[in-house]
Parts: sequence; C-alpha cells; structure tokens
Amino acid sequence: MPADSLAVLTERLRRFAEARDWEQFHSPKNLAIGVAAEAGELAAEFQWIDGAESYRPDAAHLDRIRHEAADVLLYLVRLADRLQFDLVAAADEKIALNALKYPVEKFKGSSRKYSEE
Amino acid sequence: MPADSLAVLTERLRRFAEARDWEQFHSPKNLAIGVAAEAGELAAEFQWIDGAESYRPDAAHLDRIRHEAADVLLYLVRLADRLQFDLVAAADEKIALNALKYPVEKFKGSSRKYSEE
Amino acid sequence: MPADSLAVLTERLRRFAEARDWEQFHSPKNLAIGVAAEAGELAAEFQWIDGAESYRPDAAHLDRIRHEAADVLLYLVRLADRLQFDLVAAADEKIALNALKYPVEKFKGSSRKYSEE
Amino acid sequence: MPADSLAVLTERLRRFAEARDWEQFHSPKNLAIGVAAEAGELAAEFQWIDGAESYRPDAAHLDRIRHEAADVLLYLVRLADRLQFDLVAAADEKIALNALKYPVEKFKGSSRKYSEE
Repeated sequence: MPADSLAVLTERLRRFAEARDWEQFHSPKNLAIGVAAEAGELAAEFQWIDGAESYRPDAAHLDRIRHEAADVLLYLVRLADRLQFDLVAAADEKIALNALKYPVEKFKGSSRKYSEE
Repeated sequence: MPADSLAVLTERLRRFAEARDWEQFHSPKNLAIGVAAEAGELAAEFQWIDGAESYRPDAAHLDRIRHEAADVLLYLVRLADRLQFDLVAAADEKIALNALKYPVEKFKGSSRKYSEE
Repeated sequence: MPADSLAVLTERLRRFAEARDWEQFHSPKNLAIGVAAEAGELAAEFQWIDGAESYRPDAAHLDRIRHEAADVLLYLVRLADRLQFDLVAAADEKIALNALKYPVEKFKGSSRKYSEE
Repeated sequence: MPADSLAVLTERLRRFAEARDWEQFHSPKNLAIGVAAEAGELAAEFQWIDGAESYRPDAAHLDRIRHEAADVLLYLVRLADRLQFDLVAAADEKIALNALKYPVEKFKGSSRKYSEE
C-alpha cells in the first residue's frame, strides 16, 4: 500500500529540519510568515499577465510557478506538523462548511458569494 | 487501497467548482490571489503573539489556524489542478533542490542560509 | 506651512499606540506581519474581477479598497517609525534604482522587465 | 511651500510609468498583486528573527527592509492614483474608525482587541 503523499512529505520535512537543527527556528509563527512570503512570490508570477494568459505559461514560467507553489505547500505542511493537526482533515471540514455556505442552487454561476461576503 | 489524500482533495474541489459553474472564475491568476489572501489571514493569526506562544494556541485559536491553513491548501490544490501539475512532485523537487543548497554539514544549527540569501 | 501628510500620519499613529500602551506589541516583526495580512485583504478585493473591471469598482467596493489600502499604509508608516527610517527617502532611492534598472529606451511598452527578472 | 511628500511621489511614479508606456500593465488588480508580493518580501525579512531582534537589524539588513517597505509604498501610491483616491484621507478615516473601535479605557495594554476580533 503506497503511503499517503502528504504524510510522506510531512515526514521528509521533519527529517530535513532535524538533520540541520532547524527546529529551533520553526515556530508556528515563523512558518506562517514563510507561507505568506512564498504565497506573495507565487502571486507575483501572475502579476503582469491577465487571467486568460495565466492558463498557458511557457515551460520556464510553469517551472517557476510549480516551485513557488511547492514552497507554499512545504511551509504549510511543516506548520501543520509543528501544531500537530491534520491538514487534510482541516481541508475536508472547510469544504463541508463551504458547501453549506454556498448551496449550489443559490450560487450557480455567480461570484457574488465572494465579493459580497 | 486508500486513495491519496491530495488526489481526493483535488477531485472534490473540482466537482465543487463544476457544480457551481465557478470554473470561469478559477483562472490560475485568480487562484494565486486566493492563496496570497488566505496566507495573509493565516499569518494574521500569529501577529500579536511571539514565537513561544505560537506553539500553544487555545482550542478556539487552533481552530481558526486550522481553517486558515486549510483555505491556503484549497486554493493551492485548485491552482495545481487548473495548471495540471502535480503539487507533490513539485514539492519533492523543491526538497531535493534545498538539500543541495543547504548541505547538513554547512548549515547545521544556522539560520544564516535564510537571512543571507 | 502645512505639515507633510506622512509626518502627520506617523505622529498620529505614535500617539494612538502610546495612549493604549500598544508599543509593546508593535515590534517591527509584528508590524511587518500586519503589512502582509492587510495586503492580502487588499488583493482579495480584486480576486474575482478582471483587470478592466478593477478600474471601476462601485462606491461600496471602492470604500472597501480605500480602507484596505489605508490599513497597509498604517502598518507601513508605523514600521518605518519603529525602525526610525524615512519611508519617502527610501521610496525615492528605490525609484532612482528602478530608473537605472529599467531605462526608458529599452523597456518602453514592455513588461518583459518584470517577468524575466 | 514644500510640496507634500506623497503628492510628489504620486506624480513621480505617474511620470515613470508614462515614460515607459507601462500604464497598460498598471490595472488596480495588477497593482494590488504588487502590494501583496512586496509585502510578502518585507515580511520575509523578519522571518527568522524574533520580535526583540527585529528592533536592531544591522545596516545591510535595514537597507533591505527599507527597500522592501519602499516597494510596498510605491505600489500602494500607484494603486491609489489609478483609482483616484486620496491615500492619506483614507488613512485618516481608518484611524478615526479605529479610535471608535478601540477606546483607550477599554483596550489599554491589551492585545485582546486584535486576537478576538
């Protein structure tokens, strides 16, 4: 049975930090700053192109996007590990909450939900 | 064999968007803004506490942190799906690059790597 | 002679924090998180509209944008005050550096500068 | 009478963009992404140091902080110019709202205001 990808990632990052004695720097607060900083870099990749163009980055651009997205994920996974919560369970909860908040019949085709929150 | 958690999440989010006709709003550019916005909310949860306190949020605070972290993950997973790349493969690549960039013997116990980049 | 607007703002924010004994919370690190968190909220205001639409928010939307932009500025001004540097002098330096980096004859009409950095 | 610093900055950035034909790229949406991206870089400057250390960056670090803070301000000023609103007036409004929201007698010395919002 293959191990779950996020569980494997969590474990690899933990060993990476332990090997370098970096746990002292990895407070949840510092890791949350890491998530925000990398998310800013990810957004910057889309700054000067419009929505339609953002579907078709060239190979070099896609590589930069992939790596920035990965950086966000790494900090996120590490944060969840440090605070000992299950990221996927939290995501499942959030999807269930969103399903209640945005019932299909009411929000179909509308972005109103977002902008009028 | 249990399905991989990120694969399941990707599929659930895709159906969620399709059911609401929201794919028109989910350009990679817009989703990247979502990642940054939610990452800002996650960081805000740690704004007024110091590093030591950030290890022990109370139950209500941990719940807010879990949900903000989940929001970042949801947008990230959705972005990877829209651009058809494998988030975990990207993360693995990034870890391999980081291992080359920060060899254990040179960076053990030092946060220099980060601050002097 | 009217006082400079940023100098007035700096002074008002300083008194605001002093009156509430909030200086203990206003470390540069915490204020930088505030800048990032508010910048995320500002970006979120533009998440679901395209570039063309973003030029013409309705009155309520413009008000939200104005207030989020103000929040970013307030934290930024406060951060500069705590680290005792002149935000406008820093901005002037940065414009001078950008003028060298992006000479008119080479970058006219091109966003290449950004995306290929 | 000296001109107001933010008014001067607004004018300089406008001419900078016009000279390069960059107004086509400077939609409010794109500029808001710029604010968030630069705010992420600013926060990253404080990622691995604690609050106390963040008061005393060395000269090179302070320079990086000053320039990242300047980048946030430049995008913010440009955004306000494109949407034709007065950033300082918006900041004044926000301070007035905050004064109502956080009366001195009730919030003196407490960061509760923030964390329980």
